[in-house]
Amino acid sequence: MSSILVVGSLGYDTITTPLGRREGILGGSANYFSLASSLFSPVRIVGVVGEDYRAEDLALLEARTIDTKGLQRVPGKTFFWEGRYEGDMNEAITVETQLNVFEKFKPSLPEDYKSSEFVFLANIDPELQMDVLSQLSSRVFVGADTMNFWIGSKREELEKLISKVDILLINEGECSQLTKSVNTVQAVKTLTEMGVSAVVVKRGEYGFMLYSEGQFFMLPAYPVAEVIDPTGAGDTFAGGFFGYLSSLGVKPTFENLKEACVYGCLLASYTVQDFGVAGVARVTKPELSSRLTSYSKMVSGLPKV
Amino acid sequence: MSSILVVGSLGYDTITTPLGRREGILGGSANYFSLASSLFSPVRIVGVVGEDYRAEDLALLEARTIDTKGLQRVPGKTFFWEGRYEGDMNEAITVETQLNVFEKFKPSLPEDYKSSEFVFLANIDPELQMDVLSQLSSRVFVGADTMNFWIGSKREELEKLISKVDILLINEGECSQLTKSVNTVQAVKTLTEMGVSAVVVKRGEYGFMLYSEGQFFMLPAYPVAEVIDPTGAGDTFAGGFFGYLSSLGVKPTFENLKEACVYGCLLASYTVQDFGVAGVARVTKPELSSRLTSYSKMVSGLPKV
Repeated sequence: MSSILVVGSLGYDTITTPLGRREGILGGSANYFSLASSLFSPVRIVGVVGEDYRAEDLALLEARTIDTKGLQRVPGKTFFWEGRYEGDMNEAITVETQLNVFEKFKPSLPEDYKSSEFVFLANIDPELQMDVLSQLSSRVFVGADTMNFWIGSKREELEKLISKVDILLINEGECSQLTKSVNTVQAVKTLTEMGVSAVVVKRGEYGFMLYSEGQFFMLPAYPVAEVIDPTGAGDTFAGGFFGYLSSLGVKPTFENLKEACVYGCLLASYTVQDFGVAGVARVTKPELSSRLTSYSKMVSGLPKV
Repeated sequence: MSSILVVGSLGYDTITTPLGRREGILGGSANYFSLASSLFSPVRIVGVVGEDYRAEDLALLEARTIDTKGLQRVPGKTFFWEGRYEGDMNEAITVETQLNVFEKFKPSLPEDYKSSEFVFLANIDPELQMDVLSQLSSRVFVGADTMNFWIGSKREELEKLISKVDILLINEGECSQLTKSVNTVQAVKTLTEMGVSAVVVKRGEYGFMLYSEGQFFMLPAYPVAEVIDPTGAGDTFAGGFFGYLSSLGVKPTFENLKEACVYGCLLASYTVQDFGVAGVARVTKPELSSRLTSYSKMVSGLPKV
């Protein structure tokens, strides 16, 4: 079992969905990711919070033995995002973003983090993602996420990053924007031509598509009749994905990536069933196993070949 | 092996997609359906064509030993539809519909068709679908499709029909319109509460969701990098689905429905790879088996439970 390092945001979110509204709840990619991945492996977290960051929110991570030594606490307010969902729940509408302390964030890895073997670079400035890469001394498997803002404003830096990571985990909109292709099957092939060896496209209720070395693996999401808040589902997916892989502790095979996608997908289904991190924070290993059993039945039973 | 009866449209389509344009090519739900289902079982077709219906288009069905005795040929022009696709290819934009001879179509089953055991009521007026139902003497398994126009204009008749068929095969937009729910998981539950015992929701590139007796089965579509023309994919799905079920010849179990969905889904992937019926018309059983083998690998490999 290896340690996972995640570099990303910690923040407070105000979220409105057709099923309710929550103000100033815990959010940020690094929180979703580490709550999910810590079910499998020890996690180290690098990010920045302001003076208003609540002790209970730090305690939530520490109770999961997530290593928060790499967390910078600086003067000012914590990153804040307000978003709302309408209709089909697959896309958030940003109402407001306050970068706050995140604006000047420069990730600096504590000495013992530098030998982390499994690393997830959540959605931050691709130049910072690249800077983290350069601090690593014994990487085995590194993944990155990004967002429309960076694809639009820092494409060159992003393309450089893509060619240096082992896997890209992005959603369909980002995939299409990055490759200029609306066909996801074509887009993942294009991405591998851009130098990344594997891609996971996160498709919301439609699940995911994994592509690597000319091979596909795709499954739909676990069926959830009441999607309360989709925020963080993608980061939860990445957390389950990396958590499982680092629990194996070796350079993943394609079969390992497939299994990791399923864990990511299932963990994301808990996130969408409650506001903020509440859903993923509640999941236990036995609960996850039970959902895996029920999911397996829903996606197997093909005709014999 | 039982015979399948399909009642639906035969027509000519003009289709524009980002990859080209074809004028006056063969289309209509009954054509897509019967070309797909005849790979598995004998098919009987009921519909109407005008004087302009080309001999070669009839010959295409007869070469597959599709029984065309139930086809009415009447004075006037054949049904015509013009549509185009933009962007994500999941939804057609109707440019023009000319009902022509289809306007006064009243399905009348030849005597020996009345004992058909497997029946698919393609998208036509729900009153006509109900009328066909009343002509059947030994039905084993009956499915129906519909469209936004009938949901909007004949909801009452449609709801009555739904409660009398064994399975509904509709697309996501129709599912949402019919149940007033944007959540497909919730929507299929609502549909079974409306009296249908099983539902297949066709999701385009995202595959399908089958729901019956509290059980789900869902898989994504076979990955196609170049979708040339999605017209008829849903009817091709239904054709593969019914073709497989009628080849079993017995009242289907949930496991049978699952297998039938996979055949439907795979056959639809051929349809989208060419304009009109050209893709599905070319498929052979060995070719289909080979695609099933490759598809099976793409959707299996979950963690052991």
